[in-house]
Amino acid sequence: MQDFRRFSVQKVHDRQASTVEDDLVTEEPLEIRVNGQSFSVTMRTPGNDFDLARGLLWTEGIITSEPEIGTIAYCPDEQQPDLKNILNVTLVDTSRTLESSRRLWSNSSCGLCGKATLDSIHQVCRPITSSITIDRDLVYSLPSRLREAQSNFERTGGIHAVGMFDDEGSLVILREDIGRHNAVDKVLGAALQAGLPLAKLIVLVSGRLGFEIAQKALVAGVPIVASISAPSSLAVELAKEFGMTTVGFLRGHSMNIYSHPQRIRLRP
Amino acid sequence: MQDFRRFSVQKVHDRQASTVEDDLVTEEPLEIRVNGQSFSVTMRTPGNDFDLARGLLWTEGIITSEPEIGTIAYCPDEQQPDLKNILNVTLVDTSRTLESSRRLWSNSSCGLCGKATLDSIHQVCRPITSSITIDRDLVYSLPSRLREAQSNFERTGGIHAVGMFDDEGSLVILREDIGRHNAVDKVLGAALQAGLPLAKLIVLVSGRLGFEIAQKALVAGVPIVASISAPSSLAVELAKEFGMTTVGFLRGHSMNIYSHPQRIRLRP
Repeated sequence: MQDFRRFSVQKVHDRQASTVEDDLVTEEPLEIRVNGQSFSVTMRTPGNDFDLARGLLWTEGIITSEPEIGTIAYCPDEQQPDLKNILNVTLVDTSRTLESSRRLWSNSSCGLCGKATLDSIHQVCRPITSSITIDRDLVYSLPSRLREAQSNFERTGGIHAVGMFDDEGSLVILREDIGRHNAVDKVLGAALQAGLPLAKLIVLVSGRLGFEIAQKALVAGVPIVASISAPSSLAVELAKEFGMTTVGFLRGHSMNIYSHPQRIRLRP
Repeated sequence: MQDFRRFSVQKVHDRQASTVEDDLVTEEPLEIRVNGQSFSVTMRTPGNDFDLARGLLWTEGIITSEPEIGTIAYCPDEQQPDLKNILNVTLVDTSRTLESSRRLWSNSSCGLCGKATLDSIHQVCRPITSSITIDRDLVYSLPSRLREAQSNFERTGGIHAVGMFDDEGSLVILREDIGRHNAVDKVLGAALQAGLPLAKLIVLVSGRLGFEIAQKALVAGVPIVASISAPSSLAVELAKEFGMTTVGFLRGHSMNIYSHPQRIRLRP
C-alpha cells in the first residue's frame, strides 16, 4: 500500500528528450460499506482508509460520534487477497440499515472495487487507434492559447478550464467550471452536439489528470489528453492500456509524456 | 446566471488590512433528470448546463450518440422561478427508465437543488460559536508548516494535503490524498477518533475551498478554515451564515478573509 507508484516517463525539455523513472500519486477506488451495505465509492489514495471512512460517515450524517462505530475492517477479496479496496464499517447498532436516499452509491454489487478496475472499463470502451500526430512545439503552445481565451480565471483565480484543440492548435471549444470533471463533461457534451471528429482532437485540462478525466476522454475517443499538472497512477494505467496519449506538467517548453508518445513528433 | 459573484473581502498584506470588493467563482448545485427521473446532482458553475448534461450522460454511458437526446430544458421551480438548478433531459425513447444502479444520485426528492441549499443545511448543522482567536502571523506561518510535513507532494506533485493545527500553530494531524474531499474526511475522521476539541482547531487545505469542504468542516464544528487557493461563492455564503471564519489565497504574508474575521487578530 504505497502513496505513489513508479512509471517510466518521457521527459521533454526544449528539443531534448529522455526516458526517466518518475513517481505518480496512487489512485484507487475504495468502496465503503456500512453494516455490510454499500454506502459509497470514492477514488482515493490508499492509506488512512479507516480515517476516511470515519470522516465520511461523520460528515454525511450517518454517525454523530465515535462510539457509534463498532469495528472497521477490510473485506477480503477471494480472488485478490492483497486488494484492500473494500471496507466494512460495523456500527454498534448492527441492525441498522441505511435508507437508499442516504447512500452515495446506489449499486450494491460494486464492479469497480471488487475486481480489477480496468476489467470493468473494457466492457464499455474501445481502444483508441487514431493516427493523429502533432508537433512538440504545438503542444508547448497550448497552455498559453487556453489561458488567453479564459475569461474567468483572472477574475476569481478559482476556476478550472478545459480546452479542445485541433491538430493545428486552434481552440475549438473552451469551458470553465469550478469542478474539473464538469468542465470536461461540458467540453465533450458540446463536441457531441456539434458532431466534431473526436479522433482528431486534443484535450487540455488546467487541473490534475485523474482517472475519471482519463475515463471520460476515453469514452469520447479523444486520442491525446494533456494537463498542466500531474496525472494519477490509474489515469496513466488506463491510457497505456487503451492507446491514449497522456501528457503532464505541460509548462513553458517542458512536458512529461506518460503513454503512447508516438503521437507527439519530437523531431522536426 | 453569472460565473462569478461579488463579495466584500478583508485583504491583509503584512500589517496592512483593507476591505475591498472581490469576485468569487459561482458554485451551485445542478440536478440532472433523465425522462423525469433524478440521475445526478453535481456542484457546478452555472453556464453551459446543457453541454454538461449531454457530456455527463455520454461519459456515464447513458447515451452513445447525440440523436438519442430529444429535448433538454430547465424544470421551473414554482417557488423560485429564476432558479435554474434542475435540468430534465428527455430522451427520444421517452419510455426509458434508468435502473437504480445507473444513477449517480439515489434520492428522487432532491432537497439540495429544488429549494435553497442553505435551508437544507440548517437541518443538520449548528452555528459555530467558538471564541478562539489566532494571531495574523501565526496564520501566515501555516502553509510552510504544512509543506514541511508533507511527504508525497515533492515526489509526485499531484497530491492534496490537509492539516489540522492548534491555536499555537502546531500541526496536530496531516493527511494527503489525490482527492481534496478525501483528505478533509481523513483529517476529520482521525480527529473524531482521537476525541480532539474541534472548536479550538484550524484546518488548512492545499486546494480550493469549495462548498463541500466548508460543509464538512461545519459538520465537524471547525471554527477556522484556510486555503492556499480560492474559495467558491457557496462556501463563503455557508461560512457567513454559520459563523465560520474562512481565509483564502493564504500565501507568504498575504491572505483574504471572507467571513467572520474577528477570529484573526490583526493587531498585536
